[in-house]
Parts: sequence; structure tokens; C-alpha cells
Amino acid sequence: MRVEILTIGDELLLGFTIDSNAAYLARALGEVGIEVVRHDTVGDEGPAIAEAVRGALDRTGGVVTTGGLGPTSDDLTRPSIAALFGRTLRRDDVIVAELERRFRALGYGTMPRSNLVQAMVPEGARVLENRHGSAPGLWLEDERGRWVAMLPGVPREMRGMTRDVLLPLLRERSASGPPVVVLSRTLRTTGIGESALAEKLGDDGLAANGLRVAYLPGWEGVDLRLTVRGAHRDDADAALAGGIERLRLRAGRYVYGEEGDDLAAVVLDLCRRSGMHVATAESCTGGLLGGRLTSIEGSSDVYLGGVVAYANAVKVSLLGVGEATLTSKGAVSEEVASEMASGARTRLDALIGIGITGIAGPGGGTPEKPVGTVWIAVDIEGRVQTHGRIYVGDRDEIRRRATQSALDMVRRALSRDDALSTR
Amino acid sequence: MRVEILTIGDELLLGFTIDSNAAYLARALGEVGIEVVRHDTVGDEGPAIAEAVRGALDRTGGVVTTGGLGPTSDDLTRPSIAALFGRTLRRDDVIVAELERRFRALGYGTMPRSNLVQAMVPEGARVLENRHGSAPGLWLEDERGRWVAMLPGVPREMRGMTRDVLLPLLRERSASGPPVVVLSRTLRTTGIGESALAEKLGDDGLAANGLRVAYLPGWEGVDLRLTVRGAHRDDADAALAGGIERLRLRAGRYVYGEEGDDLAAVVLDLCRRSGMHVATAESCTGGLLGGRLTSIEGSSDVYLGGVVAYANAVKVSLLGVGEATLTSKGAVSEEVASEMASGARTRLDALIGIGITGIAGPGGGTPEKPVGTVWIAVDIEGRVQTHGRIYVGDRDEIRRRATQSALDMVRRALSRDDALSTR
Repeated sequence: MRVEILTIGDELLLGFTIDSNAAYLARALGEVGIEVVRHDTVGDEGPAIAEAVRGALDRTGGVVTTGGLGPTSDDLTRPSIAALFGRTLRRDDVIVAELERRFRALGYGTMPRSNLVQAMVPEGARVLENRHGSAPGLWLEDERGRWVAMLPGVPREMRGMTRDVLLPLLRERSASGPPVVVLSRTLRTTGIGESALAEKLGDDGLAANGLRVAYLPGWEGVDLRLTVRGAHRDDADAALAGGIERLRLRAGRYVYGEEGDDLAAVVLDLCRRSGMHVATAESCTGGLLGGRLTSIEGSSDVYLGGVVAYANAVKVSLLGVGEATLTSKGAVSEEVASEMASGARTRLDALIGIGITGIAGPGGGTPEKPVGTVWIAVDIEGRVQTHGRIYVGDRDEIRRRATQSALDMVRRALSRDDALSTR
Repeated sequence: MRVEILTIGDELLLGFTIDSNAAYLARALGEVGIEVVRHDTVGDEGPAIAEAVRGALDRTGGVVTTGGLGPTSDDLTRPSIAALFGRTLRRDDVIVAELERRFRALGYGTMPRSNLVQAMVPEGARVLENRHGSAPGLWLEDERGRWVAMLPGVPREMRGMTRDVLLPLLRERSASGPPVVVLSRTLRTTGIGESALAEKLGDDGLAANGLRVAYLPGWEGVDLRLTVRGAHRDDADAALAGGIERLRLRAGRYVYGEEGDDLAAVVLDLCRRSGMHVATAESCTGGLLGGRLTSIEGSSDVYLGGVVAYANAVKVSLLGVGEATLTSKGAVSEEVASEMASGARTRLDALIGIGITGIAGPGGGTPEKPVGTVWIAVDIEGRVQTHGRIYVGDRDEIRRRATQSALDMVRRALSRDDALSTR
């Protein structure tokens, strides 16, 4: 089964919101073997919506849309797709009652009248229950079996409905098609660039087995997605496992996990297995490292907390960094990073302390310490390793890369696979 | 001038990377008056790329693509668009020399041979200089004046080239067209939902002036984008200013700024004007509040730092939260939030302390304190305000919303516009 995704909304078209819905849907559909061949985005304009849906139906016969089901005048998905299918809209009293119940339950009082438009249903449409918000989804199908599934644009609602309603429905439909297995696995690497990684790997041997490698660079590192397509699941599985094994060997210590693994979770697991608590001391990253560690559910049994030591006075008072060190070496130095890491470890009574200090820019750089200069230190039971680098990118990228590097230092130290590289 | 955006890459199509390029380009083009009417995304497949470009050229005559210009075998933008235009590829020695120079300058040693493909240029194409990375962009135009601008997919490179090369080039081209002014301004609100805001505003009066309002909900709040289109800049400007004024009056205290304003920056400015330093104490947000404050350039003159007090022991040792309070009220309580805020304020020698404690889930909830329960306290020179809420959403959303609410509490307190609402 091949489908397209159409995300709808002026906010997306004009670029005021980054579209995360298309990516979520593509992954969710891909995981159940449905091939997404294209995403489109159009604004809140009836004719543009209708034209995009028509084009997608012509190409693939199935479209999932998000957005434009809200209560305001710029929500046009419902009427424009109904018109394309030649269906009239009628008010559904069950939906009205459910909308009113929901407003009461949330303590919002009387439902605004504008929400009534969310109860309008095209003739012959199937209503897709939304247990995560007010607008239900809709499923419309024509006499040739071509269909549109309309989901709300709010990511939380769209995600919930995809799991609850859309995937079961599509799985049922696709069960009758010819068996084509598309499998993929992804290795995650960090600390090496795309072209260096490609040189290291080569991909001739992989192509011979019907495997396809995609290099997916991101600020966290380069992901390697290996895909295989075939008629038999066992063969495809075996080809994929063999390919992954070869990639792992060639990429070596740069691999930190597979698809869905977050480096923060990998590090927390390593610490958990070693029985080590972690504390952080952050200057230029300002809390991002703590934020990443605590984004992982269950981090509280490993991560104790830390100090955001943005001002130098806080480095001294809460972490015990020496005033002399700050004066002689400067706040962005190997020595201060090291004292921060050790201060966090001892003051929070942890076995591992991580210190980060740097110049995230755009101001504050000097010829000796340009913007992007970052020193990271990891203190494990009193043994301190340090790493200095000049990161390329804007303020946000420098801070995120430094956070990733700090996590990777802990990973490498605890997996004891090699000495840390230094500048 | 109407254009479309085509983002290319399996990582985007399969949903492994969220596409931020389309949004960036749409905003950048919109700001110079170029109307973006659609975005498409296709994978690294020659025929899909060619078909999408052909469709976009038929609709609008101009396409900006990103991605697929890299050195690896899955980078197919260059050959597939060259083939669509009927042009052959030839190696450009100037680009080869520049690529080699770049590799040496970055200390990468000899250039991998795979990068040579980046020096292939379609006959008749204009090379668009890339001062931010290795792959240059390309501009191809046919005899009917229809064009494709190909930019790299790495966001930093794409953004730099958009500013350096693409916008000047398009501004030059569009200068000859008929003058149509499209202006827009956006108000940012927080603390109120989309439909409640729509009820509050009404938009009939706005429509009468040729204005169009879009509601752009996000986790930070709802943005209100007001757009006007007309032949004369002064008239459009006046209509827009009038509309914004009316929206501001009706939305009242929920408005914290205009387009591009980050609530963290608004709060830092208010603190700066009051001469007040800020310190944070975070439990469930784990550093996200510090991370947001320090994402703003120049935050160091206001934000001193803080404590990530994830473990209760850290709340006691570094913030002075009473063990008795933790035992009797629980870590997620109004009282602990309050002691955290005050602890941060006094221990970091600030005038403002912010404390956040909550249950981000998915585990840890109880009937009395379900997942999403968050207490926030703001201590300004010893006067403490608190706010308790149950946020809806997943772990990430709960943490981000709590961070936003904490910032908004400080904003409202310093703008003295009203008492803080409580649960």
C-alpha cells in the first residue's frame, strides 16, 4: 500500500510552525509496512487543499491529511474535501453531545458556538474517534476505493489518533494486498562526519545483497538507515541482520545504538549498570544537559541533578571552582571544566561529574578562544578526562553539540573502548 | 512571484528527520514578498524528484529545492533535475579546487574522492556559492524562464546560502513584476486556548478591512498572524497596524509579544529593566528553564544560574528545602516549589527565584497528584507567588508547558498587570 501525507495550515505553509506531523506519520506508517511516497503542505485555502488531495489520490489512491479541522474560520479541510468528493455536510448530533461533554469535563464551562463546526460530517464519511481532543477525524472513500483520512493538526491529538484508529484501520485494509516485506534498521553514530563515515563504510558489499544505506546527518550525529525489500520475511531479516553487523564492525566505536536510542538513555543505562550516580555542572549549555538526561523516563535513579553555573560567582559558590583558576585560566578553560566536573561530583555526592564551559556566541569570542570553543570534563570517581573543541554552527547548534559530546565522553569512558580523542 | 519548495531526502520522507528547511525557506521568502504556495517532500529517488519538480514548475514556474547535493550515492538531486531540463553534467575544476582548499583549511587532510561528485554542474547552470559548507548550490533555468534553485539540505548551509545568494537573486528577478504588497504581523499569546481566544476576539471586524487572521497553536501558546494584501504599502501598513491594535486590546494580558519574540527574551528584558537578577531551581523540568533562558544571547547579565534539584537530597543540600516540608507535603507541592524558589534566590544571591516541581510522567502519578501535576513558585525579593496546574500531554509537553508557564508568571508579575491565576 502506497500513501501520501498532506499537512494543511497557513502556519506550516508560511513557515511559522515546523511540521512535525508529516515525520511522525511517515514513521508510524512505515513501521506497519505502508510506503509513504510523498508529503505535501498547503495553506488554509480550499482550492489548494482540493488540488493537493486530487493529485495525491491520482498518484497513490490514499492520503492522510492533518490540520484544518479546528473551530475557526481558517479551518477548511472538511468542506473542501467534502466538495471534492461531491458530498454535502450535515451536523452529527452524537458529535455535538460529545463535544459538549468534553467541554464540561475539562471545566471549560459552556462550549463556544464556534466549536459546532467540528460536528459537521460529510455524507457517507466514517467518523474517527478522537480521545485526545475536541475535533474528531474523518474517513472518506470514493466508489473506486480511493480514500482520505483526515486527522487534526494538533500533534498530541494526531499522534494519539494515529495509534488508536488510523493504523488499525490501514493494517486491516492492507492485509488483503500482495505480501511485500520492507524492513529497515538504523544505526546511530556520533563523533564522525557524513563523508568520512561513507569512506569508512563503502557500500558496494551492501548493495549486492539488495540492501540500501541512507546517511541521515543530524546535529546528534549521522544515522545509518539500512533498508531491504523482498517477498520473504526471513530472507529479508537475515540480509538486514548481516548488513547491520557489517556496518557495526566498520563504524566501530562511533556507533552508540540503534533506531530510537537516545544517547542520553544509553549513558543512563551504562551508569545504572555500573551503579553510578551522575551530577552535572553547566555553563554555556545552561541546563540543556540536565534537560536531556531528564527527558528520559526513569532518569531519576541515576541522575541526581546539577548546577547551572552561568555566572562565575556561582561556579565558585556552588561548585567550589577556584577564583585563582578563573582568573589565571579564564572561565572557558580545561582547568575550569575540570573543577566544575569535580565540584558537581563531590557536592552532589555522585560518582560521575560532568562539567561544560564554553563560548556559545554569537558574542564573546576572542582570537585565542573563538566562538564555539568548548571544554568538557568528565570526573569518574576522581579520574578526570577532558576534551576541548571548537564547534561550528550557531548558538543553538554549538550548545546542542556540546551536550551530545559530553554524553558521548561518558559513554566511551564507561564502555572503556578507547581513550578519548582530544583537540 | 509565486514559488514552491521541494525538500528532498529519504530521512525526511521516512520521517527520521523533521523538516525544518521548508519552514525556514517559507519565512525567508515571505519576508521579501515572495508567495510560497506549497511545499513538497520526496525521497532520494530520481523519478520522484523529477516528477515533483515538473509539477511545481507547471503550477508556479519556480522551485527551491533542498537536499540531495551531498557526496554519497543517495544524493540524486543534481542528475535528476539536470535530466529533466535535458542538460548533461560536467566536472567544474573551479569547484574541485575550492572543495580541496576547504578540506585542507578544515584540517581534514585529503578530500575523499566521493566529494568529487559535488563538482558536477549541469550545462548552462549557474553555480551558487556556498560559504558555509562543501556542496555549492545550482540555479537552472529553461527557455521559458522557469527555474529551479538547488540548495544543500544541511540547515546551516541552506540558511546561509538563502541569505547570501538566493534572496538577492530572487529580489532582483521579482523587481520587474507588478507591485503586490503582502504584509503580516503576528501577536504571540500564552495561557489561553485556541477556541477561547477565537471567542474573545471575533474576526468579523477584521475581515471587513481585508485582513485575515490565522490561529497558530503551539505548545508555547497561540500565535495570531494577521495578513493583509494590497497594491499600496501605506494603506496595507495602516490596516495592519489598526488590526493589530484591536487584537491586542481584545487579547489583553495574554499577549506577550510579537513575531519572533521569545517569552524567555521578554522576561529577561523585564528583569533587566528592573535591575533584577534571576536564579532557577528545577526538578521535573531538569534544566529546561535554564536552557531556555540561556538560549537567548546576552542572558548572562540577568540570569545567574540555578540548581537542577532532581533528587530530593539535592533540594535539601543545595537549596535548603526543609526535610520536614518534603516529608509532610511531598516533593510535588506548593510548599516545596516555594522553598525551592526562595532557596535559589538566596543561595545564588538573586532578586528573583523560580522553582518548579512536578510529575512529568509517564510514571509517578497518584490519584491525588496525577501525571502532569506541576507547582511553580516565583519569589521576587521575598514575596512568593505560586501556581498549581495539571498539564495535559506527554512527558516532553508537560515539561515544556511548565517551563513556559514559569516564564509567564515572571512576566505577569513584573508587568504588574494582574494577579496570577491559580488552579
